Amino acid sequence: MPATVGILGGGQLARMMALAGAPLGLRFRIVDTVADACASQVAPLTHADYHDFDAISKFADEVDVVTFDFENVPADTALFLASRVPVFPNPEALAVAQDRLAEKQLFRKLGMTTPDFATVDSREELEGALLNIGAPAILKTRRLGYDGKGQVRLKSAADLDRAWNKLGSAPLILERLVPFDREISVVAVRGRLGEFAAYPLTQNFHQDSILSASLSEAPNAEPVREAALGYARRLADDLDYVGVFALELFAHHGSLLANEMAPRVHNSGHWTIEGASTSQFENHVRAVLGWPLGATGANATSVMLNWVGELPDPLPVLAEPLAHWHDYGKTPRPGRKVGHATVTGPALEVARTLERLSVALNRQEQIEPVLAALAAMP
Amino acid sequence: MPATVGILGGGQLARMMALAGAPLGLRFRIVDTVADACASQVAPLTHADYHDFDAISKFADEVDVVTFDFENVPADTALFLASRVPVFPNPEALAVAQDRLAEKQLFRKLGMTTPDFATVDSREELEGALLNIGAPAILKTRRLGYDGKGQVRLKSAADLDRAWNKLGSAPLILERLVPFDREISVVAVRGRLGEFAAYPLTQNFHQDSILSASLSEAPNAEPVREAALGYARRLADDLDYVGVFALELFAHHGSLLANEMAPRVHNSGHWTIEGASTSQFENHVRAVLGWPLGATGANATSVMLNWVGELPDPLPVLAEPLAHWHDYGKTPRPGRKVGHATVTGPALEVARTLERLSVALNRQEQIEPVLAALAAMP
Repeated sequence: MPATVGILGGGQLARMMALAGAPLGLRFRIVDTVADACASQVAPLTHADYHDFDAISKFADEVDVVTFDFENVPADTALFLASRVPVFPNPEALAVAQDRLAEKQLFRKLGMTTPDFATVDSREELEGALLNIGAPAILKTRRLGYDGKGQVRLKSAADLDRAWNKLGSAPLILERLVPFDREISVVAVRGRLGEFAAYPLTQNFHQDSILSASLSEAPNAEPVREAALGYARRLADDLDYVGVFALELFAHHGSLLANEMAPRVHNSGHWTIEGASTSQFENHVRAVLGWPLGATGANATSVMLNWVGELPDPLPVLAEPLAHWHDYGKTPRPGRKVGHATVTGPALEVARTLERLSVALNRQEQIEPVLAALAAMP
Repeated sequence: MPATVGILGGGQLARMMALAGAPLGLRFRIVDTVADACASQVAPLTHADYHDFDAISKFADEVDVVTFDFENVPADTALFLASRVPVFPNPEALAVAQDRLAEKQLFRKLGMTTPDFATVDSREELEGALLNIGAPAILKTRRLGYDGKGQVRLKSAADLDRAWNKLGSAPLILERLVPFDREISVVAVRGRLGEFAAYPLTQNFHQDSILSASLSEAPNAEPVREAALGYARRLADDLDYVGVFALELFAHHGSLLANEMAPRVHNSGHWTIEGASTSQFENHVRAVLGWPLGATGANATSVMLNWVGELPDPLPVLAEPLAHWHDYGKTPRPGRKVGHATVTGPALEVARTLERLSVALNRQEQIEPVLAALAAMP
């Protein structure tokens, strides 16, 4: 019998996992709280609440292994599943990655540098933390934040009331807002036997706190590569993590600060579909099944452009020989990730392609920063 | 609304089309006479006879364009569909490719060299044809033959009765059995506006008359490339063909003989999934939708190994960094194509990988001829 992989969450990450796993002969089953979640177009979907344990139990009976397409899986659901069927990443790793405080404490324990931070559970603690850490700082909910949601910046103590009033009802963490040259992510995979492989480092670009583009390999990454991969490996080993994950790092004057970990395939790894020997999606599936990991090398430069809110005109992208178009089959909505494109090839040709797309799609704001980074390549 | 592509036939070709089209945001609907045809694992399938025009009519209402995953689509079904919805390739092109005689006559009309042939509708015609053409020859049914089925070889006139008794109930064609160095295929795509693109030439290897392996680019193809691509283009233009097709050619001492055309994505183009910028499956879908064609270039050497009858152990393949595993999700059965693997990379590394797989999978007979061809590469 072919193996069946269960995925909690039916968004574009589940969709791309199912599309990567189908050629391997795998079947997929998906659970989502939304009946027409976009992964349902490529695999059977169970429409259920994550606390509907009857439905979750039936789902567990139908699959050989369970994984996730989002990190904020309810802890009790993850534990319930783990009592029935192998679950990767393990619920404990998921729990750490769900909590910005536990995550940063683990980073520190493992000798990874992080921006200064302090836990904040009251207005008094916020005052004290801001005094200790110093402004500018950023106040974040410990849980359930993503894409800049659940965050308030404090330029000075004058912003304290506003920040507290906005977020004070949840457990918080205050972090020093550090200056940095760029954000880099390590997308890596760890197998069931502890095998480890990482993709070339990726440099990330943002608009409105949402990833707008990724460039791999991050230019001039040589000085930080070893440290970045060391961080990722230590983290994965410590958590006995199985599957693909992303570690976001701030690079500043050749030093690295660990920002956060995403315990899943990651937007900054989408370029691997065409740009690497094995995509992050195939490698995640291989890892959770206990199969050999696929090669993570790349022999070209890749740029991923995110389509947020709405898709641009596909025709100019389809007409570019180095470009690959991805439409997640989702209804457009402000702030929603609805697709992406990857341009992959020799760096100079990638740059020429991006210059044409920048004009054709009228996306200068999104593409210019990537072109500037490409121009800095050796 | 996203475009929906309808496919008649739900085998591995339809499956790979759907998997290639989903990232583009496309939906698929499939019709097959078998309820659990393997494409049903990745797209909704209507289980119906191709002459159930109620079902076919409903199917036509649900899709924006119709294409095929096999060439022997009943002519009346193709025409019925074409009266309801755009159908590519067009039914006339399909009809020519379905009939070995019409096909060879068209080849000749277009100035393409073919082995000598004659139509055979009676035992007397067979005798006369064999005298004219000379032995050895091969008697084939004009229609419905594939993978060596519907064929009998005649070494001399002594084989005439046996051949006639086996095939005499159907319209036939007798072809001169020509000696040739190798079989080469052109996998090419033509768009709705007549745009044309071809993949690098592919050399094919057979076991028991079934494709066992493909190597692209065919070594030392320079002397025949221009003629081969010219043949393919003339053929596609003449038929107003839209979509991907394969033209199989016999190469002998630097000359080419046209053997047959497959009016669909083709087994000898499976290597394009990982080995070319745009796979044959994506390009077929782009073409039938009237979208711009994708780039057909390759920047590495690729070898496709067919898994016929049963899958080998996947582990040695999964463990090879240059190898990609494909399992069609089909039940094993003698002679059935159940999967393939593609090894892609620099020629020398591809050869080293094949040497290891040859031993690990105990597939020397399948792999040695490819290694010999690779060794002849410049």
